[in-house]
Amino acid sequence: MPSPSLRLISLCLVACTVLACTSRTTTTTTTTSDSTQVAVDPLPSWNDGSVKQDIVSFVQRVTHAGGSDFVPSAERIAVFDNDGTLWAEQPIYFQFQFALDRVREMAPERPEWKTKEPFNHLLAGDMKSFLAGGEQSLLAVIAASHSGITTDEFETVVKDWLNTSQHPKTGLRYDQMAYQPMLELLAYLRANEFKTFIVSGGGVEFMRAFAERTYGIPPEQVIGSQGKLKYEIRNGVPVLVKLPDVQFIDDREGKPAGIQTFIGRRPIAAFGNSDGDQQMLEWTAAGPGARLAVIIHHDDADREWAYDRGSPVGALDAAWGEALEKHWTLVSMKNDWNRVFSH
Amino acid sequence: MPSPSLRLISLCLVACTVLACTSRTTTTTTTTSDSTQVAVDPLPSWNDGSVKQDIVSFVQRVTHAGGSDFVPSAERIAVFDNDGTLWAEQPIYFQFQFALDRVREMAPERPEWKTKEPFNHLLAGDMKSFLAGGEQSLLAVIAASHSGITTDEFETVVKDWLNTSQHPKTGLRYDQMAYQPMLELLAYLRANEFKTFIVSGGGVEFMRAFAERTYGIPPEQVIGSQGKLKYEIRNGVPVLVKLPDVQFIDDREGKPAGIQTFIGRRPIAAFGNSDGDQQMLEWTAAGPGARLAVIIHHDDADREWAYDRGSPVGALDAAWGEALEKHWTLVSMKNDWNRVFSH
Repeated sequence: MPSPSLRLISLCLVACTVLACTSRTTTTTTTTSDSTQVAVDPLPSWNDGSVKQDIVSFVQRVTHAGGSDFVPSAERIAVFDNDGTLWAEQPIYFQFQFALDRVREMAPERPEWKTKEPFNHLLAGDMKSFLAGGEQSLLAVIAASHSGITTDEFETVVKDWLNTSQHPKTGLRYDQMAYQPMLELLAYLRANEFKTFIVSGGGVEFMRAFAERTYGIPPEQVIGSQGKLKYEIRNGVPVLVKLPDVQFIDDREGKPAGIQTFIGRRPIAAFGNSDGDQQMLEWTAAGPGARLAVIIHHDDADREWAYDRGSPVGALDAAWGEALEKHWTLVSMKNDWNRVFSH
Repeated sequence: MPSPSLRLISLCLVACTVLACTSRTTTTTTTTSDSTQVAVDPLPSWNDGSVKQDIVSFVQRVTHAGGSDFVPSAERIAVFDNDGTLWAEQPIYFQFQFALDRVREMAPERPEWKTKEPFNHLLAGDMKSFLAGGEQSLLAVIAASHSGITTDEFETVVKDWLNTSQHPKTGLRYDQMAYQPMLELLAYLRANEFKTFIVSGGGVEFMRAFAERTYGIPPEQVIGSQGKLKYEIRNGVPVLVKLPDVQFIDDREGKPAGIQTFIGRRPIAAFGNSDGDQQMLEWTAAGPGARLAVIIHHDDADREWAYDRGSPVGALDAAWGEALEKHWTLVSMKNDWNRVFSH
């Protein structure tokens, strides 16, 4: 098993290698569904079919008091990956775009970066030289953009970035690229007394800056990768400072571990889109009673992106194999969703 | 700042040094309060006085819609230390008693322990020789009793121990030594749409085995010290195995860090009893708006134990000083509680 820092580097690396690639497709949002349907259908952006039926049937079974599959509401835990499951992740993870933007924004206060690798290459727009620095370059950017700042300050920085940044292809705010069908699904599950959690490889502090507003998920239900925090008193005021050291990487085998550490109860429903979610889906599906394991397949090059095996970001390979073998629910964004983005 | 493993050792050390000490007092439970009062008073085990008034007044202010101190229910986070705050902690932390009992229970399957230090001393009842081994002895006992087992198995082991063990002084089950006034307080806060969390130096998996049943606190609202977990497939079945390595120590400066990592929102109310809670109380009290920081003072040698500064378990020294300086609420178990244990 690779070390946590190697995992972090690996996550960044796949994100970063595509920086130099040309983008593949443009995206458009689609029109909303028939408004007369909204009142009666909790999932109006989901087309009728076996996938929607799988989801609705599962919810009906576990909430049917007296039924053989009934699950008490305290145990109705549903977990969602974030990147590629609740919002888009192309052409690079949005959090990595934030890291790059933040380094550029901080540059005026850090004049030494003009001549210091790898920042000099990044600031000069020379991505080839930047990437040639490998792991060290990526770690330096993550550390510079995510640490040496209090948790309160970091929350403000992320919110400001979201309020002022646009996705390079869609022109949308990043949080407008949440998936409308998934927002409906979150609301539908909560209406049925599920507790919805994010379980993502992304940084926990980064996600919490928008998760409540965007997804209706409160900070205490957001689980992610974490840096270490240092408690200190500054001028008589206690603060928590973000350190560059990794505390926990919530990806792959780390996801079931994160679920156990943070939730302490096995979910009955899990939603992901990539190999990073395989163990979370596996752990969820292996529990007793009714279970729902769902993979979102990015197969819509017109409205979003089309990628799976071999993609440098969000590769779906081993998890796809296990999904087919174990009959997990596979969502085709192209066929099962009549609308993609929440915008 | 000491390393996490040093902290763990330190926690164990103070617990263990008192093993060889004689106990100081015996305890008795008191009779319940006037039953006619229960219907109207949500805190019948709390005597009328300034402390009870502090608590009720705070709750009324933060829940009064339109008032200047109003706090939306999503932000009504209350955090509670466990040992010495929600249940007793003398003469040694109950979790350490569990560790000792478990080593003794495992001994028949581990014949090599008969001649292997420090287990040989422990099994022979020679605590003096056991303690002479210092940190290494304590770590060995914690590792042997808390790892090399799946999370599901560990939960069963802890529940079995609770169901079959008695406190050496009171003869009560350990979970009957939860404090009745604190159970009422938890229920009162939840009735006022607070979310109640445990934030304890104790092991998270250990506490979750009884927190829901005893305190009404679900596993996802229990924050504690954590060992690392390893995800693996055994005979086709995924399991999470508890490793002997420390992931995070949720004590002292670790408590605000744990709160931020797990909850992501600063509490508005915090309850503790020892120096291990000082930073949690400080962090809570330093936020804007109405705040409640409460220290339970163990001053009742007749019904429980009397200890503070200099106690080998649950020392209250620096936190007491800060409480007096900052006018935190100090609960006298002797004067403010008309009943102690939930039994």
